[in-house]
Amino acid sequence: AIMAEITRRLSDGPLKGKHILVTSGPTHEPIDPVRYIANRSSGAQGTAIAEALTALGAEVTFVTGPATAPRPRGARLIEVETARQMLDAVQAALPAAAAVFCAAVADWHVTNAGSSKIKKDATGTLPTLDFAENPDILATISKGADRPPLVIGFAAETDDVIAHATAKRARKGCDWIVANDVRPETGIMGGTSNQVTLITADGAEPWPLLSKSDTAARLAARIAEHLT
Amino acid sequence: AIMAEITRRLSDGPLKGKHILVTSGPTHEPIDPVRYIANRSSGAQGTAIAEALTALGAEVTFVTGPATAPRPRGARLIEVETARQMLDAVQAALPAAAAVFCAAVADWHVTNAGSSKIKKDATGTLPTLDFAENPDILATISKGADRPPLVIGFAAETDDVIAHATAKRARKGCDWIVANDVRPETGIMGGTSNQVTLITADGAEPWPLLSKSDTAARLAARIAEHLT
Repeated sequence: AIMAEITRRLSDGPLKGKHILVTSGPTHEPIDPVRYIANRSSGAQGTAIAEALTALGAEVTFVTGPATAPRPRGARLIEVETARQMLDAVQAALPAAAAVFCAAVADWHVTNAGSSKIKKDATGTLPTLDFAENPDILATISKGADRPPLVIGFAAETDDVIAHATAKRARKGCDWIVANDVRPETGIMGGTSNQVTLITADGAEPWPLLSKSDTAARLAARIAEHLT
Repeated sequence: AIMAEITRRLSDGPLKGKHILVTSGPTHEPIDPVRYIANRSSGAQGTAIAEALTALGAEVTFVTGPATAPRPRGARLIEVETARQMLDAVQAALPAAAAVFCAAVADWHVTNAGSSKIKKDATGTLPTLDFAENPDILATISKGADRPPLVIGFAAETDDVIAHATAKRARKGCDWIVANDVRPETGIMGGTSNQVTLITADGAEPWPLLSKSDTAARLAARIAEHLT
């Protein structure tokens, strides 16, 4: 972390002095003290994006759920567990020149989460979980008072990727959507490569299959181009 | 892995030639292609137990869910995701001289898991998840035809640890239960130490707070004493 900080401070990159927020990883929504609901996300793409932005001179705040990927070097790190905690951390970290919402945030949390472990009983009765929607972090920030000048969301889709992602961009009010196809057969989730489509006001721009670090470098370069 | 295998083959330990099955990690029960329900379990205790048994000369089959802990050196490794897959893998691995069921297996799976990502819709409608009980791996093996001579279960409890674990031993039909208190304030889940109580036909025997590797070594020694 010290080396990365030195690198960043010495860096005369195009993002020097710009504060950029990156969210990453899954969120975990508790059911009881030992069980939770999660989204599949290693956090690898988010870590790579934070490091690519840092390499261009940005001051990165990295808000992450419980991801298995290593934490990015050179970023200010904030660890959270749930979607509600992530929104609080994001709001506290603003203002920023740009925000990249890479985290796979759970859409729902369990409202009747227990403080004791739910026990199986002999009657075979099954648990009833009551759900409530989590705050929509991307939409909240995109439409909020402290909106960064550039807001980028991610869309993990299993079908009609471009149509769903284009609709998501309009609905959330963000500037760009980085869309990808997470059907298990693509191997993207948990893998080292990514194939994304960048959705902007100008339309859909498919990127080639790249390593997650090359995808990150390309996105960081686009952000730098936009902000400078 | 090669070094561990050499160590094992050179070992003239008390468990030489004994096949021992160890399960470890959480199971993940899919909700849809990107979401799942899980138990909190790093797999650290299971990996430590497998390595301690290998060090005493045992031939270990290690059946693990998606755990973040490193895989044990010197064991035959079988990776699974769900409880139903874990039971299949365990049954296929028998017979064994002993089985240590250390995995934090989900008690339920979602019967209406989707093959496409569940979308939030504008109406705010929330998902309904239907649950069914997972097979009880510990009870199935304890009461099955291929029952290993020594069957050891784990009990992760948040209250009345000894009472719950003693009842569990009787209900499941296993020989020993390794019980621990997983209330968040103990720091055991996700931590490096463990404080367990061994429940046998003779009663409850509290062990001191030990590192997970010392807990594993003590359990492996008890298994060796019992089997030889």
